[in-house]
Amino acid sequence: MLSGGVGAAKFLSGLVQLVDPQSVTAIVNTADDTILHGLNISPDIDTLTYTLAGAIDTKRGWGLRDETWRAMNSLLRFENIRPVGSLAAPTWFNLGDADLATHFYRTARLQEGATLTQVTDEIRRAFDVQVRIIPMCDQTVSTEITVASCDASVSGQTISFQEYFVRHQHSVPVQSVGFRGSETAIFGALDELRASDAIVIAPSNPIVSIGPLRALAGVDEALTARREKVIAVSPIIAGAALKGPADRMLRELGHEASVVGIARLYSSVCATLVIDHADKDRRSEIEATGMHCVVTNTVMSDPIAARNLAQVVIESVM
Amino acid sequence: MLSGGVGAAKFLSGLVQLVDPQSVTAIVNTADDTILHGLNISPDIDTLTYTLAGAIDTKRGWGLRDETWRAMNSLLRFENIRPVGSLAAPTWFNLGDADLATHFYRTARLQEGATLTQVTDEIRRAFDVQVRIIPMCDQTVSTEITVASCDASVSGQTISFQEYFVRHQHSVPVQSVGFRGSETAIFGALDELRASDAIVIAPSNPIVSIGPLRALAGVDEALTARREKVIAVSPIIAGAALKGPADRMLRELGHEASVVGIARLYSSVCATLVIDHADKDRRSEIEATGMHCVVTNTVMSDPIAARNLAQVVIESVM
Repeated sequence: MLSGGVGAAKFLSGLVQLVDPQSVTAIVNTADDTILHGLNISPDIDTLTYTLAGAIDTKRGWGLRDETWRAMNSLLRFENIRPVGSLAAPTWFNLGDADLATHFYRTARLQEGATLTQVTDEIRRAFDVQVRIIPMCDQTVSTEITVASCDASVSGQTISFQEYFVRHQHSVPVQSVGFRGSETAIFGALDELRASDAIVIAPSNPIVSIGPLRALAGVDEALTARREKVIAVSPIIAGAALKGPADRMLRELGHEASVVGIARLYSSVCATLVIDHADKDRRSEIEATGMHCVVTNTVMSDPIAARNLAQVVIESVM
Repeated sequence: MLSGGVGAAKFLSGLVQLVDPQSVTAIVNTADDTILHGLNISPDIDTLTYTLAGAIDTKRGWGLRDETWRAMNSLLRFENIRPVGSLAAPTWFNLGDADLATHFYRTARLQEGATLTQVTDEIRRAFDVQVRIIPMCDQTVSTEITVASCDASVSGQTISFQEYFVRHQHSVPVQSVGFRGSETAIFGALDELRASDAIVIAPSNPIVSIGPLRALAGVDEALTARREKVIAVSPIIAGAALKGPADRMLRELGHEASVVGIARLYSSVCATLVIDHADKDRRSEIEATGMHCVVTNTVMSDPIAARNLAQVVIESVM
């Protein structure tokens, strides 16, 4: 599975009810990764790990259940001390106290010279997760978002994904999206793509979650070579994203914020698109892009719904 | 004041009851500093800051009052995952959840290019501390302890100060002590030494707390030049350290673990030694080293005792 965060994690939690988790590999976006407080933060990887471990806070959608926030709350002391221009002690990005341990381990191992692939595997084993979780690459790739805001203090600025997503609550219009470092980064799972029985493109943001994986050398070619075995689940239902800014972002970047827009983005690398019943009227337009279209319930409101969706995906591609 | 951690902090909390805190400067040992979890840890600086802020956990002697330990407890998950040879996620060094915020701020600021001197000043202001707190230098100096243990797995090994002090609970005999980096590090407060009304050598470990400051170029010369205005409070009372391994360490390194041993270490740079009533019989031996000897109560069991000791020190040197 090519994976972003929350939508991908939910789909995986359905999939592992049906197939041996050890037969599943998630290749995860790391262009949202950042460093804060000196700690290496990998939001999508942790969302997958915590979800599959049954440890995620489902209401929040990220981080661990039953968290406490002592460290974050204690940062407030430095708000008025930080010199102008300093980004130290940001209070707009939350890390729970228990969650910090995962970040301590990741940071220390990376500083020891371990690769992100190694550390990610160690962390998922520490959480007893059976699904293999692989970062898309071991090099730093960073999503850069240029914003087109009427707020002059922000307009034209290029900001990091987390600044866009968390700090500005993805409320500023996007002018363009780039992935710094993607020209030289090495996608670590081309062999897995080639050897897999099927490839699922998770219901994740096609621009900032799946986009970074596809920006790496060889990925689109590997998908195209196996196009009949590639299946995507639309993250857009009835013109809207269930979570996050995918719909607005698609529109702002000149795409249609609909299942047809998704089909146009994926048709060259993917043979089948799974859409929700709400969009069944758009089937012929999807088929016009050269894709098969499967209609089912794609809203993963609970584990049963996630399992049912995974069942349809398996039957459609295997 | 030339300062280590706990003993120095207690003395300072007495001193600021008598003089304007803004007229006091503490120049602090940083050779105990280390990096764990990717975070920059400065134990002696934080002990001073937290003590003067009234925020220290007095029972533990370090860290903040009313702490929680969620992050540390959550590290246990990685104990059996960490590969052989990895030092990630150590569980032998505790950092409380609220205390972590201080470390996040320090680490982020250092990574932004601030000096430890700048960051230390920002942190003490965030804690509303009026005493100036200056690290002995902005470069990395690391205490290295070569242990002479009957435990063959440890003997002859050179370990860091925190490994010796915390991990081994200072229970292994010391063969030698060195300060890596001290040849090139720059003592940042020579002007303060020269311009001060008086210089107090705090009741800190003479080897591993005061030793690192004295190992830096120019410090002993600056002290010697102002010798009559330098006064030390003995950290040894009746042959024992109130806290920590100073007594054993002195013996293991061939010194006498007594006020006379302290006098011999300090007499070249310091004119006056303050000792406890318990050691009054050694006065003539101390005077034989060329020092004045002041006898008083040096056990700082409460704020009044600390203030009384500070009063005697001021009267003896000013």
